[in-house]
Amino acid sequence: MSLIKVLNFKPLGDDRGDLVALEELVDIPFAMKRVYYVFRTERGVSRGFHAHKNLKQVAVCVTGSCDFLLDDGTTRETITLDSSTKGILIEGIVWREMHNFSDDCVLMVIASEHYDESDYIRNYDNFLKIANKN
Amino acid sequence: MSLIKVLNFKPLGDDRGDLVALEELVDIPFAMKRVYYVFRTERGVSRGFHAHKNLKQVAVCVTGSCDFLLDDGTTRETITLDSSTKGILIEGIVWREMHNFSDDCVLMVIASEHYDESDYIRNYDNFLKIANKN
Repeated sequence: MSLIKVLNFKPLGDDRGDLVALEELVDIPFAMKRVYYVFRTERGVSRGFHAHKNLKQVAVCVTGSCDFLLDDGTTRETITLDSSTKGILIEGIVWREMHNFSDDCVLMVIASEHYDESDYIRNYDNFLKIANKN
Repeated sequence: MSLIKVLNFKPLGDDRGDLVALEELVDIPFAMKRVYYVFRTERGVSRGFHAHKNLKQVAVCVTGSCDFLLDDGTTRETITLDSSTKGILIEGIVWREMHNFSDDCVLMVIASEHYDESDYIRNYDNFLKIANKN
């Protein structure tokens, strides 16, 4: 099974333009508590470089593109997020990195919990120890 | 009091780029159940033209811009949404219309309920009757 869980969102566009709607516990497989968006990322910058203990997230580039790398401690896989209708579900002990942001990229992330610094694993060696215990 | 309730979101950017995080019951004054985004709106198209009986929404242009008109049955006001850190809260019996979408506009809306057609008031005369009862 691929490490990367792709979610294909239903486009609800018509002759006016495009629309994508994401409902908690329907399109998003958890109750949403937080939405954040990353934008105007400087050229050459990568982001992420952490895992979470409990957080679940869905990530989608609502415009532009970036590469999303996921790593479960054994396997590393990368997907290019480049469509408003293609998201990924990130759950479990998974290291993530985001690379190659396009100038126009707006990366939106829907999260299952409020921000909690104690849920982060920011050291890769610690991540490997925790990931390989599971 | 203005009909338009502006929410100024805290920018959490640093030297990597920009980030805005919206937490339910903190930055967003309700529990979020749905997020939708409107994009690639055709030139000259306006959207909306309805009110809601119970739904609460926060709208923000995460990129680009559009004009948001709100009408409570007595007063009509318009605001240009043109910043990733400026949203509006829409609640109560308010008619809304969106105009002048820029080509690059991505309008994100966070909603307090799942989609429910029975919550819509799509006829302006009906809206006026309901609004003016309140």
